[in-house]
Amino acid sequence: MREWQLRVDDVADPTPGPGQVLTKVLACGICGSDLHMLRHGAEMRASMADLVGSATGSSNGNDPMAPKPFEPQHDTIMGHEFCCEVTELGAGCDNLKVGDVVVSMPVAFDAQGLHALGYSNRYNGGYAELMVVNELLALKVPNGLSPSMAALTEPLAVGIHAVAKSRIDGAESAVVLGAGPVGLACIAALRMRGLGPIVVAEFSAKRRELALQLGADVVVDPRETPAIEAWRKIDGLRPLVIFEAVGVRGMLDEAMRMAPRGARILVVGACMQQDTIHPMLGIGRELNIQFVLGYEPAEFTSALSALAEGEIDLAPWLTGTVTVDEVPQAFTDLGSPDTHAKILVVPGFAS
Amino acid sequence: MREWQLRVDDVADPTPGPGQVLTKVLACGICGSDLHMLRHGAEMRASMADLVGSATGSSNGNDPMAPKPFEPQHDTIMGHEFCCEVTELGAGCDNLKVGDVVVSMPVAFDAQGLHALGYSNRYNGGYAELMVVNELLALKVPNGLSPSMAALTEPLAVGIHAVAKSRIDGAESAVVLGAGPVGLACIAALRMRGLGPIVVAEFSAKRRELALQLGADVVVDPRETPAIEAWRKIDGLRPLVIFEAVGVRGMLDEAMRMAPRGARILVVGACMQQDTIHPMLGIGRELNIQFVLGYEPAEFTSALSALAEGEIDLAPWLTGTVTVDEVPQAFTDLGSPDTHAKILVVPGFAS
Repeated sequence: MREWQLRVDDVADPTPGPGQVLTKVLACGICGSDLHMLRHGAEMRASMADLVGSATGSSNGNDPMAPKPFEPQHDTIMGHEFCCEVTELGAGCDNLKVGDVVVSMPVAFDAQGLHALGYSNRYNGGYAELMVVNELLALKVPNGLSPSMAALTEPLAVGIHAVAKSRIDGAESAVVLGAGPVGLACIAALRMRGLGPIVVAEFSAKRRELALQLGADVVVDPRETPAIEAWRKIDGLRPLVIFEAVGVRGMLDEAMRMAPRGARILVVGACMQQDTIHPMLGIGRELNIQFVLGYEPAEFTSALSALAEGEIDLAPWLTGTVTVDEVPQAFTDLGSPDTHAKILVVPGFAS
Repeated sequence: MREWQLRVDDVADPTPGPGQVLTKVLACGICGSDLHMLRHGAEMRASMADLVGSATGSSNGNDPMAPKPFEPQHDTIMGHEFCCEVTELGAGCDNLKVGDVVVSMPVAFDAQGLHALGYSNRYNGGYAELMVVNELLALKVPNGLSPSMAALTEPLAVGIHAVAKSRIDGAESAVVLGAGPVGLACIAALRMRGLGPIVVAEFSAKRRELALQLGADVVVDPRETPAIEAWRKIDGLRPLVIFEAVGVRGMLDEAMRMAPRGARILVVGACMQQDTIHPMLGIGRELNIQFVLGYEPAEFTSALSALAEGEIDLAPWLTGTVTVDEVPQAFTDLGSPDTHAKILVVPGFAS
C-alpha cells in the first residue's frame, strides 16, 4: 500500500536483526481493518491528529510503547494475521530453529522501538513472501495445527479480548450485532467459554449461517426480527451484554435503544467517524459502554492454544484462499458479505 | 408547576392512605433536576417518547416498577429532597408516631402503583406544606440531625450511588468535572470513603471553594488549567475515574479526549439532548462509559447515616433558605452559580 492504494510489487528481502528470525509466510488472513485502512485511513489519520492534538497533556499522544505510525507516502506491506515458517535465525536466537512453524502478535521491536507488523514502513507484514519476527514473541504452532487455522489466532484473540473485557459470566446472555470477522470472533470466544445464549443479528444470510456454525444459538435478519425480540423469546430475563461489531455510524445509539436496563455494550466495531448518541437512553437505564481494542499477549497465546487443542473449530470461517497477486481482487470480493468471510493469502500459485 | 410554568397556589390537604403518614415539610432542597425539568422537560418528554417508541419490545417502555409520568397539563408539586415531621398516621401504621422527623426516598406506592414524589400529579412533593409518605420508606432522622441537613440525604445518595457504580477503589484517583449539586455530591461521597486524590474542574469560584470544603484535593478553573493537567501534577500514574457532572452537550466527548488509557467515565450529569462523540477516542484507549441515575434504597439509608454520624459535613453546601412564596425567585437565583449552591425551602416566613 502506498498513498492509500494497493499495489503488488517486488521488494528487497528483509534481514533479521539480533533476537529476530526471518520467516516465509505460509498463510495470512485479510483483515477488515486493512479494508478500513484503505477506505478511511486518510480521513482517520487527519481526524485523530486533530483530536489528539487538541487534547491537553503528554500522556494522550506520546505513549512510548505505541508503535510508530506508518507514513502513507512510503510503502507499507499490510497483513497482521500470519502464520510463517522460520528460514533463518538472527544473532542470539536460541529457542527457535529453521523449519519451525510459528505465529506472533503483529508487533516487532528493535533498538528503534516498537513496530506494528502490517502497518509499518520498516517491517514487512504478512502479505509479503518473507517477514521478520522477534523470537521472543514467536509462538510455535503445536499439535500439527495447519498454517491456515493458525493464521486465525490473531482474529480469534480479538474476540477473546472483547469477551474478557465484557466481564460476562455464566449468569448473563449475549447479543452480537454483526457477524463480520469481529462479530464471528466474539461468537467463537463466547462459545469456547460456554457462555450464552448467543443471539446474533446480521443482514447477510451467508454470515448468519457462519454464526450458527461458530456457536450462535439464534440468528436473525434484523430487517425481519429485531435482535432484542429474538433474545426475549429465548431468555429476556438475565443480564444482557451487547457486542456491537458493526462499527458504522448510528449503531452505538441503536444498541443503546435496544438495551434493557443495566446492559453492558461492548464496542468492538470501529466507527471511524464522529457519531451521535442520546445520553438520556444511557442514563435512564444505567447502561455501560466499554470500548475495546486488540488483545493482551496472554489472550493471543490462549487463542492459539484453543485452536490447537480443538476447543473451537473455525474451519467454516475460511471461505477462500488467494495468492499475493490476487489480494487486490480479494479486497473487492470481501465487499460482498454473502460470498466471503475470511480470505487467506498463501504463497505460490492460485488455488 | 403546570404547563412547564412555576406557580404558587393553595391546594387541598392530602389524606394518607393505608400504610401512609401525613407529614408537614420541615425543609426541602431545590434540585437541579427541577430547573432542568422546567427548562427542558417538554423537549425531553417529546424526544424520549420518540426514542422509546421507536425501540422494539416491551421491556423498554413498560416497566411495571417505573413510576407513572406526570401530565404537564395538570398540577405537579415538585420537591424530592425533603425532611418532614409526621402529623397523622394512616391505617395500619405502627412504626412511626406523630412528631417523628423523617426522610424518605421520593417515591410513594399505593394500589395504583408507584408515584415519584416531586414529579407526580397525585402526590405532593416537598415544596408543599403537607405531603404523604409511605411508612415503610420513611427513615427516622437520628442523632438530632437538623432537618436542613437531613434534607441533603437525597442529593448525597446520588453521589454515593455514582461512586459505587464507578467501582473506584483506593488504588485509583478521581477527576470531577463540574461542582454543581451532582459534582459536589460525588466529591462528598468520594471523601467519605477516603478515596482520592480528587481533582475538580469548575468555572465558578464559589463552587470551587465549596468543592474544597467538601473534600476536593485540587480545584481548577478549566479555562486556566485543564483538569487532566492538574491531575498529572499530583498523580498521573494511577488508574483514573472521571465523573462527568456537567451534563451539557460536548462534555462527554471532552471527557473522552482528556481520559488516559483505560479510564472510566461516569456520566452523572444528565445531557438531555442528543450528543456527539468520537468512538475512535474510546477505542484507542479502551475507555469505559458508565451512565448512572438515582440510587438504591441502601445507598439512601447510608447517606442519612453518614450525615447523622458526622462522617461528612455538608453545611457549606447550604447557601440559602427561602419560603414557598420565594421558590420562583430561588429558581432564578440558582442560575448564578457564584452565589448559590443548595437552597432549601422551609415553611413559614422569609428568613
